[in-house]
Amino acid sequence: MNAPAAGPVNRMDLMARFQEVRAQTERLCAPLAVDDYQVQSVLETSPPKWHLAHVSWFFETFLLKPFAPGYLPFHPRFEYLFNSYYETLGSFHPRAQRGLLSRPTVEEVYRYRAHVDEAMFTLMHAISQERWGDVAGRITLGLNHEQQHQELLLMDIKHNFAMNPLRPAYQEKLAAAAESITPLRWIEREGGIAEIGHDGGGFAFDNETPRHDVLLRDHALASRPVTNGEYLEFIESGGYGDAMYWLADGWAAVRENGWCAPLYWEKHDGHWWHMTLAGFLPLNRAEPVCHVSFYEADAYARWAGKRLPREEELETMLAKQRVEGNFVESGLLHPSPATSPADGQWYGTVWEWTRSAYSPYPGFQPLAGSLGEYNGKFMANQMVLRGGCCATPRSHMRASYRNFFYPHDRWPFTGIRLAADR
Amino acid sequence: MNAPAAGPVNRMDLMARFQEVRAQTERLCAPLAVDDYQVQSVLETSPPKWHLAHVSWFFETFLLKPFAPGYLPFHPRFEYLFNSYYETLGSFHPRAQRGLLSRPTVEEVYRYRAHVDEAMFTLMHAISQERWGDVAGRITLGLNHEQQHQELLLMDIKHNFAMNPLRPAYQEKLAAAAESITPLRWIEREGGIAEIGHDGGGFAFDNETPRHDVLLRDHALASRPVTNGEYLEFIESGGYGDAMYWLADGWAAVRENGWCAPLYWEKHDGHWWHMTLAGFLPLNRAEPVCHVSFYEADAYARWAGKRLPREEELETMLAKQRVEGNFVESGLLHPSPATSPADGQWYGTVWEWTRSAYSPYPGFQPLAGSLGEYNGKFMANQMVLRGGCCATPRSHMRASYRNFFYPHDRWPFTGIRLAADR
Amino acid sequence: MNAPAAGPVNRMDLMARFQEVRAQTERLCAPLAVDDYQVQSVLETSPPKWHLAHVSWFFETFLLKPFAPGYLPFHPRFEYLFNSYYETLGSFHPRAQRGLLSRPTVEEVYRYRAHVDEAMFTLMHAISQERWGDVAGRITLGLNHEQQHQELLLMDIKHNFAMNPLRPAYQEKLAAAAESITPLRWIEREGGIAEIGHDGGGFAFDNETPRHDVLLRDHALASRPVTNGEYLEFIESGGYGDAMYWLADGWAAVRENGWCAPLYWEKHDGHWWHMTLAGFLPLNRAEPVCHVSFYEADAYARWAGKRLPREEELETMLAKQRVEGNFVESGLLHPSPATSPADGQWYGTVWEWTRSAYSPYPGFQPLAGSLGEYNGKFMANQMVLRGGCCATPRSHMRASYRNFFYPHDRWPFTGIRLAADR
Amino acid sequence: MNAPAAGPVNRMDLMARFQEVRAQTERLCAPLAVDDYQVQSVLETSPPKWHLAHVSWFFETFLLKPFAPGYLPFHPRFEYLFNSYYETLGSFHPRAQRGLLSRPTVEEVYRYRAHVDEAMFTLMHAISQERWGDVAGRITLGLNHEQQHQELLLMDIKHNFAMNPLRPAYQEKLAAAAESITPLRWIEREGGIAEIGHDGGGFAFDNETPRHDVLLRDHALASRPVTNGEYLEFIESGGYGDAMYWLADGWAAVRENGWCAPLYWEKHDGHWWHMTLAGFLPLNRAEPVCHVSFYEADAYARWAGKRLPREEELETMLAKQRVEGNFVESGLLHPSPATSPADGQWYGTVWEWTRSAYSPYPGFQPLAGSLGEYNGKFMANQMVLRGGCCATPRSHMRASYRNFFYPHDRWPFTGIRLAADR
Repeated sequence: MNAPAAGPVNRMDLMARFQEVRAQTERLCAPLAVDDYQVQSVLETSPPKWHLAHVSWFFETFLLKPFAPGYLPFHPRFEYLFNSYYETLGSFHPRAQRGLLSRPTVEEVYRYRAHVDEAMFTLMHAISQERWGDVAGRITLGLNHEQQHQELLLMDIKHNFAMNPLRPAYQEKLAAAAESITPLRWIEREGGIAEIGHDGGGFAFDNETPRHDVLLRDHALASRPVTNGEYLEFIESGGYGDAMYWLADGWAAVRENGWCAPLYWEKHDGHWWHMTLAGFLPLNRAEPVCHVSFYEADAYARWAGKRLPREEELETMLAKQRVEGNFVESGLLHPSPATSPADGQWYGTVWEWTRSAYSPYPGFQPLAGSLGEYNGKFMANQMVLRGGCCATPRSHMRASYRNFFYPHDRWPFTGIRLAADR
Repeated sequence: MNAPAAGPVNRMDLMARFQEVRAQTERLCAPLAVDDYQVQSVLETSPPKWHLAHVSWFFETFLLKPFAPGYLPFHPRFEYLFNSYYETLGSFHPRAQRGLLSRPTVEEVYRYRAHVDEAMFTLMHAISQERWGDVAGRITLGLNHEQQHQELLLMDIKHNFAMNPLRPAYQEKLAAAAESITPLRWIEREGGIAEIGHDGGGFAFDNETPRHDVLLRDHALASRPVTNGEYLEFIESGGYGDAMYWLADGWAAVRENGWCAPLYWEKHDGHWWHMTLAGFLPLNRAEPVCHVSFYEADAYARWAGKRLPREEELETMLAKQRVEGNFVESGLLHPSPATSPADGQWYGTVWEWTRSAYSPYPGFQPLAGSLGEYNGKFMANQMVLRGGCCATPRSHMRASYRNFFYPHDRWPFTGIRLAADR
Repeated sequence: MNAPAAGPVNRMDLMARFQEVRAQTERLCAPLAVDDYQVQSVLETSPPKWHLAHVSWFFETFLLKPFAPGYLPFHPRFEYLFNSYYETLGSFHPRAQRGLLSRPTVEEVYRYRAHVDEAMFTLMHAISQERWGDVAGRITLGLNHEQQHQELLLMDIKHNFAMNPLRPAYQEKLAAAAESITPLRWIEREGGIAEIGHDGGGFAFDNETPRHDVLLRDHALASRPVTNGEYLEFIESGGYGDAMYWLADGWAAVRENGWCAPLYWEKHDGHWWHMTLAGFLPLNRAEPVCHVSFYEADAYARWAGKRLPREEELETMLAKQRVEGNFVESGLLHPSPATSPADGQWYGTVWEWTRSAYSPYPGFQPLAGSLGEYNGKFMANQMVLRGGCCATPRSHMRASYRNFFYPHDRWPFTGIRLAADR
Repeated sequence: MNAPAAGPVNRMDLMARFQEVRAQTERLCAPLAVDDYQVQSVLETSPPKWHLAHVSWFFETFLLKPFAPGYLPFHPRFEYLFNSYYETLGSFHPRAQRGLLSRPTVEEVYRYRAHVDEAMFTLMHAISQERWGDVAGRITLGLNHEQQHQELLLMDIKHNFAMNPLRPAYQEKLAAAAESITPLRWIEREGGIAEIGHDGGGFAFDNETPRHDVLLRDHALASRPVTNGEYLEFIESGGYGDAMYWLADGWAAVRENGWCAPLYWEKHDGHWWHMTLAGFLPLNRAEPVCHVSFYEADAYARWAGKRLPREEELETMLAKQRVEGNFVESGLLHPSPATSPADGQWYGTVWEWTRSAYSPYPGFQPLAGSLGEYNGKFMANQMVLRGGCCATPRSHMRASYRNFFYPHDRWPFTGIRLAADR
């Protein structure tokens, strides 16, 4: 049995952090019209309104109902409407119908948030010291959960806006980055036994535990992610038309969906454009390629005569870097070119696909109770990604962080870092 | 070649009517939150925002662009976004994606309407007398078109609200009607040659023309539509479980969709409830049954040992009645019981399914040009309905009016009137 | 209540006819390998083995079980396996899985046929004179039923062979017909009241009754069906690419299915070929066009400035012709060119699509009991075709015969005769 | 670059083995009627006829065409019809349509086999010693390939027969095995660095290479697979109805497909039966459970408080066992109970699901050319299974063998062995 741990946390600090994370979610929604909160442009995405309510439902369900005596839920049906996938809590609104809910209105959802926030502050003040550990652990989980949804919010808004023939922009166009491409170097790394997994300091999700030994082999990692310009060579050499580069399921995806470039790319009059959160823009060849599926990442690597990294190769490298990079705080909301050969872009910029299937670590135990559904039940058919992206909050990231998506997913900010056997 | 005709129309009168119809559309939207304008709850329905824009697009496309020199469209992409199905005008936004458009916002759509209205008034003032006939004919068509969308707007809002577990109400709950059922009489009618189709006075759609002879046989028509109470007997006697009452395609629909009652009906603790525009209410057995498919109407008739009327039987009867009844002007927006044995409910209340496939009348010619796509191209696989419903504007209805839906459609206000051979 | 009627039938005559029809079914299968009996190439078709068994099931179910005391069914599960769609008889094997039944084997199915035949002859000998009328009526229905399946057998074999990249031939290649096209004349016909429907002499299906008056309008009928050459003009002028010729549902079918020519047509090196029961052959422009859907027939007619005939127009014309033409007895199994301007090809050659939805005649009563499911329940969403085709047995055809298919069906031998208003 | 290796192989030995494997395939088909060769009961399966031809196509494509000068293919279209999935060889017949090919007939397919066999013997005699190594490597691959299809043949026949309401039997009913269940013991195993992968002696598929170190942890393995009786406890305790035991994708599969027991199980009058290759039989509680998906295996393990083994845990155990067990040679074609506590059933009986996603070994290189498509391209979304089953030829199995199926697959002979962390 396993409970979320946050380590010793000061009440005032946690309240400040609660305030900050909750406010940040709403800041991210500031550019939206009421109309924008409603849309679910494809099954994988959710309406902004739903994100806003669901993260509040998380606090209501896992903190207020069990720990705040006399807490009065904002609305009796919200436990049904805003449960995402916790089967052990009872039935929930079908994912495919999240976009069909015009009610509650956006205004009501903001009132729901305020209602939950108020009750949460009361709880944080009132809870006994004895139970503070448990409560602080869960609140920290809830805040990390909300940060994950902040990232999804941006990815989902981008998808919705990209589907719209009017091509709205979420934010102003940014100054264009230079197109000069930083040369790619290979970083040689020796094999041996190494440790990965959460080392116990600070918060981590259950799927990062337990820390354990792994056997690394000699290998090399690319000094930065693959760029749009490099990926264009793959396209132009016919990569999307030659089955020999593709996994069988990837080739099937290419043909069924007519993939011939990353998501959001379009060719007009011989020039490539793509959708960004700053609107529809010409492609910059120096930027890291983004919005590719695992299949595309894998095919590119095979075409290039390389392979994708294993998650333990990336984690041991990440563990040596400072957690810095193009995170959401940069305000770019877009992968930018490496600024120098020393800029490894290990953190932020793009989530990097690994060749590792998302599986339980040896000895893995999910959290107890319904919170055990948070991560463990998704350990099939998905691939691990590492390092965070330009929509990730910096405080949310660490070396042991395991993100996961289906191999066909393209709407997250996903990119490619190459590896090679030695 | 065929052009929409409105007969001699006074400019001031048409301007007043334009003003009135356009304002009525917006009045119908007054109870909506911004959030409600966005949703397409199922493929057949459209978001209110789309309806508001599409009817304006109609005037822009068929009046302002051809007749108003120098007219500047509100937005260059709206001709793509708000074309419903006019293939000869070019490609258009896929129907299935109408609910995914968060932009234009509701506020922009209202500005679009104002832009079009202003240009339309300018046109109505400025157009030469020579071209007035053409223009007046098209405007009249456009206003009738908008009235059709007023009705769809209400049907679509009802569907969206009914899909929402919060079960919002569009309007206040009305005073409950009595549950006493008016006895059903049979009106005997002799056969012979009769005329149907538009007789040339006032506006009609092209599908009501030409007026022509038909051969009627001796038959009888029920004095009022079938009630909820009568339909419940069909349900309770196992009608939905016995293939012998059903057309083959209807039986397939029953099984695939799990139909066991009209759309919007639910049984809770032994009592039937249904969704209405005034919210979720107990079923009133005296009200006409509504939201049944053609298949259900046909199965009910077979179970009752009767049949559905042919469209010519209804039209010749309607031609003898005054155009009065439970129309949208009643404000009920719901089928109400017949008030007396003399209240035939021939007009309004519920659209009555006929046994007539929607086919061209002998000698039918569609309107010239793209307007020819208005009605003619739908003359396959659909059934004719007659008489209007509680969401129809009274000024929109006439004896020769031919509505049409697919036999599986249930979201319109559709009901049943029985007929019998004699 | 309604029972199948055959009129006064002599026992010896009916036994001879029984013998002949049953033998003809097996003769049609003679060219098949055991392997060919098994395949269901698309949902609409059935494996030859299934046809062979189902028509025997019909006699077992409607004659032997009710009328032959002590009849022992060949196999207890065949009543489940070979029921086509008679819901009132109980559940049945799903249509989509007919091709998955490797057992019973072909050899067992032939033994089943022999078993049924023997019991049928015993019944025909032994039944009392009192019950002979009923029995003879049902046997006559069963034989007409089997003749319908003979036609389906050929259509289904053709479809299966056409799907096979080896393009097998069912029969030897026939001598090529001349390519000279008989000029098309227009036969002018005056309107007025006429009678259609079965006149009571000999067998008819229930859907041809009752005979009743119809009101015809002045019109003209083409002197022969549309040829491949004429249809090619429609193709070459871009008919499949221009929505203005198409019903909305037809246009959707064109786009979803990528239709650009009749079924079985292929263009190789600038020349059109098509699949026939004699293998893959160059297209003969003089032959009547075949394997077109109602949508294509309707679009062609609109392109040509004409319309499709109504079923009453064709029936009153057919009633004046002798039942002669290119029927299955010709052995061609393919539509051949008209031999002279006097050869109207009214019967046989191709089933002619009409503009008439398949609806009940006024006063229609289906047969009593389960046999009532034979025709009546299909009276929605289908269109009437008239006159028979090159796969129809001549003895099966008459002026009042109403065939029906869905408007998208193309695998039957369906063609086009034009009509025009006058 | 990588070529299939067979080690030093004597020509006479290989010819004998060729003869034997090819004959065994045909022996497995002996109980089939011609009708049975045709059916593809579901997308994953193939018709027996197709298997017979495809394995011959393999020799034609990879041996005769490149190595036998002047070889005349049996039929020019077979290279299209019987290519399974080798994209780099050109287009091929769609998998979903394998069951629609009534031609070539079974008789022709057997002639095709004879044609290929004759040419292969000529090749094996005539090829120069210099090229013998290459040829022998490819032939050995081809024979192992054919053995894989022997196993698929039996699995596919079982599925087809199980879909048939007549429930045919492939072979006579065997003597019933005792129902006494061998107690389950736990075999404790210490962790450390171990080697897995093919050690270079004899044939192996490319996916078993290279041999490499892995890091094992302390763990225990169950002494035998889970039995039907044990699995029934899971069912009876509500395992299929409780989401907490299931991976998210597994729970979705349970609900979409209505799974409530292993494939082929049915409950009649309170007793469980299941389909076997000897027909429909009562369930024996002592037999290993079979025809479960990875999701069911994983859920069972979680319910039991254990986990599934990793592939390296099983391989290191298998490497210590003799390759003996219930293989196809036993003639049972069904999982039989363990005969004693010492009977670990490590080989044969049922393929054992592992918790390992099917991924490339470190340093993996696929075979050169089109043969590289044999295994490598399937390394996504599938899970590894180990040990062989009752339909596997004994000579086909070894410790390093990696089989793989999708986690939802149930039609192979798949079972469960538990593991536990220590």
